[in-house]
Amino acid sequence: MAQKPSIPKGTRDFNPEEVAKRNYIFNTIRKTFKTFGFQPIETPSFENSDTLMGKYGDEGDRLIFKILNSGDYLSKADEKALEEKDSNALTSSISEKALRYDLTVPFARYVVQHQNEIELPFKRYQIQPVWRADRPQKGRFREFYQCDADVVGSDSLWQEVEFIQLYDTVFTALNLQGVTIKINNRKILSGIAEVIGASDKLIDFTVALDKLDKIGEDKVKEEMLSKGISEAGISQLQPLFSLSGSFESQIQTLKSILANSAEGKKGIEELEFIDKAISELGLATATLQLDVTLARGLNYYTGAIFEVAAPENVDMGSIGGGGRYDDLTGIFGMKDMSGVGISFGLDRIYLVLEALDLFPETISKTIDVLFINFGEKEALFSLKAIKQLREKGVNAELYPDAAKMKKQMNHANKRNIPFVVIVGDEEMQMNRYALKNMRTGAQEKVSLETLIAEVTA
Amino acid sequence: MAQKPSIPKGTRDFNPEEVAKRNYIFNTIRKTFKTFGFQPIETPSFENSDTLMGKYGDEGDRLIFKILNSGDYLSKADEKALEEKDSNALTSSISEKALRYDLTVPFARYVVQHQNEIELPFKRYQIQPVWRADRPQKGRFREFYQCDADVVGSDSLWQEVEFIQLYDTVFTALNLQGVTIKINNRKILSGIAEVIGASDKLIDFTVALDKLDKIGEDKVKEEMLSKGISEAGISQLQPLFSLSGSFESQIQTLKSILANSAEGKKGIEELEFIDKAISELGLATATLQLDVTLARGLNYYTGAIFEVAAPENVDMGSIGGGGRYDDLTGIFGMKDMSGVGISFGLDRIYLVLEALDLFPETISKTIDVLFINFGEKEALFSLKAIKQLREKGVNAELYPDAAKMKKQMNHANKRNIPFVVIVGDEEMQMNRYALKNMRTGAQEKVSLETLIAEVTA
Repeated sequence: MAQKPSIPKGTRDFNPEEVAKRNYIFNTIRKTFKTFGFQPIETPSFENSDTLMGKYGDEGDRLIFKILNSGDYLSKADEKALEEKDSNALTSSISEKALRYDLTVPFARYVVQHQNEIELPFKRYQIQPVWRADRPQKGRFREFYQCDADVVGSDSLWQEVEFIQLYDTVFTALNLQGVTIKINNRKILSGIAEVIGASDKLIDFTVALDKLDKIGEDKVKEEMLSKGISEAGISQLQPLFSLSGSFESQIQTLKSILANSAEGKKGIEELEFIDKAISELGLATATLQLDVTLARGLNYYTGAIFEVAAPENVDMGSIGGGGRYDDLTGIFGMKDMSGVGISFGLDRIYLVLEALDLFPETISKTIDVLFINFGEKEALFSLKAIKQLREKGVNAELYPDAAKMKKQMNHANKRNIPFVVIVGDEEMQMNRYALKNMRTGAQEKVSLETLIAEVTA
Repeated sequence: MAQKPSIPKGTRDFNPEEVAKRNYIFNTIRKTFKTFGFQPIETPSFENSDTLMGKYGDEGDRLIFKILNSGDYLSKADEKALEEKDSNALTSSISEKALRYDLTVPFARYVVQHQNEIELPFKRYQIQPVWRADRPQKGRFREFYQCDADVVGSDSLWQEVEFIQLYDTVFTALNLQGVTIKINNRKILSGIAEVIGASDKLIDFTVALDKLDKIGEDKVKEEMLSKGISEAGISQLQPLFSLSGSFESQIQTLKSILANSAEGKKGIEELEFIDKAISELGLATATLQLDVTLARGLNYYTGAIFEVAAPENVDMGSIGGGGRYDDLTGIFGMKDMSGVGISFGLDRIYLVLEALDLFPETISKTIDVLFINFGEKEALFSLKAIKQLREKGVNAELYPDAAKMKKQMNHANKRNIPFVVIVGDEEMQMNRYALKNMRTGAQEKVSLETLIAEVTA
């Protein structure tokens, strides 16, 4: 059965170097989540289908991977759907489970299911893979990790402040300087729509405004017109199109635009609170920037909206995002549970660090030291030293076979192993180890203590 | 849409304490894998169905979770199977992917697919979840983690020696003393079957022998008879039934039984090599024990067979196992790739550590210090201190709302937070922090430096 093995499209194998680099990012994020008081939870890879279906829109439903029921699943299949070969109608009768599509809906389900065990406000983080049957393309996969932190059970704006600090802390720790943390507020967008008489066209309005960067002012206006927003309304937006400058000066412009919208003024108040706190607390390497065109999943967010842009010298788009939602758990029957959360885009952060050569060199090293194997006696002598090295946390191994010296040295070279130890008769008699530094080529006979000291230096 | 949310049977949510405890085990195993020279790989959660199907026997095929194709999957469905409502026959035409059933077959697939990038011998570890549509029961789940380490590309027995050391190192690090590492060898079992003239009944023979502990000598003999093993053959087994004592004395008995089997003698030689090396190297807390009844997945293993038993005071069965297989990658067309590997049973190890109260107290702590929130000015003052605490690695948070003092203190109590900091007008003026030790109840006004020192002590 000589099949040529492969993996499903949109999925990936990760080799040791890639795993090490990914873990470097995960560990940095995880450590920061913890110092900010977030605690980890994990949820199953698959959920009951009715937990997931209908939560992400029609497109989302389509992209959810469904798991076929086990056993004689056709015995319970929908007869009519079978007859009509209606795949869509059949699915729910032959599939009860589906793979997690994101971490937010499972988190909402978790909060409702475990509400009696949870002490509110509840700050949780979750780092797990999700699956989407999306068309794979560069940087988009069918299996990928999400790294989420959320707080539920408090509508305090200090959470928003802390999430901005958290982004700054993580990217600073990753040595990725110059990220921009963009912020907006759903209430600003609603307020503007209200002011221009387009409250009923909020989505059309924001979808068009969101494109300002890409298609420019004229086309945005055109699109708004085509969606039925009045010319008079659009003309009121003029100050928006040229909005720039500092957080404070943008706020001043918004104040004039939104003077007659209570909701808009609330949004301004929230933004000012956050901006003032961040100014007082300071950011290490990131910049906070008001971006009134930022909408993201607007239907979802009710207050702050965040998005993090990679440094300007990398063409990558957003590497994180989030916002406040005021009814996360409502879909599972638990009302009035305000929440706010952010997410890190692992794959894109990986690409950015790779592009800017920011991965520390040490993380992709293989082992510290390889012992050459000359035969049974030498191997046993070596394993006694290796045991002590491992107890000191050194990654050490014995070449398993008494192969030719050259083969073993080649193995060390190919794997970039920094130290090789050679133990022959003479070394065993003297209780010494010939330690070869593979970078410099230098070789010396040393005691076990010196050996340990040198490879851990 | 007030549905009562739940999760699929056989799956689990993990709360923060459970995640912390699981990670404690994972991290201990991972760290040991690394010092032994193993490197991590990761493979996709789902594989192409033909990678998995047919690799685990009929029962395995049945237990593999299949993923329904996306879109109009019925358009490519097998017409005949549909008409006859033959679920089994239909599956391959509506499902191309399946969830990973173990880590071994994906590893074999990885080695073959990436053979040009891999430097042999290749020592890899892999810690990822697997899924089985098994009937859930106590300690058996439909989603669970496997922690595997394997070496391929060498038939050196030093690998077996090192795996025994590795088990000993991990369980010692977990403070789980007194585990028994049982070892056997497929060649011993084949040799015995040969000697008693039952080479063609090797599986029946070993399945029966494997039950010696549970059903006793007489029933084992009965079962062997019923499977067609001759009375004369069974009588030759008599020394086996009373086999006990030290590794060496058991080996002596085996030598007399297997004197006429070349394969059996090879097995003895391998066991002796391993026993001698382990005697020389020593084990910290585990015991190596020869167990000729040990078979595990016999069809699979070709040399050493391992199984780890929990300490005698815990009723748990095996907490790890493995062995040597000489043709792992043959299923994917790559011949003569010898391998040997072991696995840790995370869920059972968890239960054992829980039963023996061996989890370190520190791992389930929540945060180190909570700052009480009295309002905007106080919160901002507190966040400046919190920022510095976090930079020192302290897990610190501000209660998000300026709620009643009592509510905030209750929150700290319920979450078992060891320190609470109270900042009011007086503290701000004096640039001091009222630090309350929640265990002792002691409270003192301290500087930021002292605060940091006390909560990190």
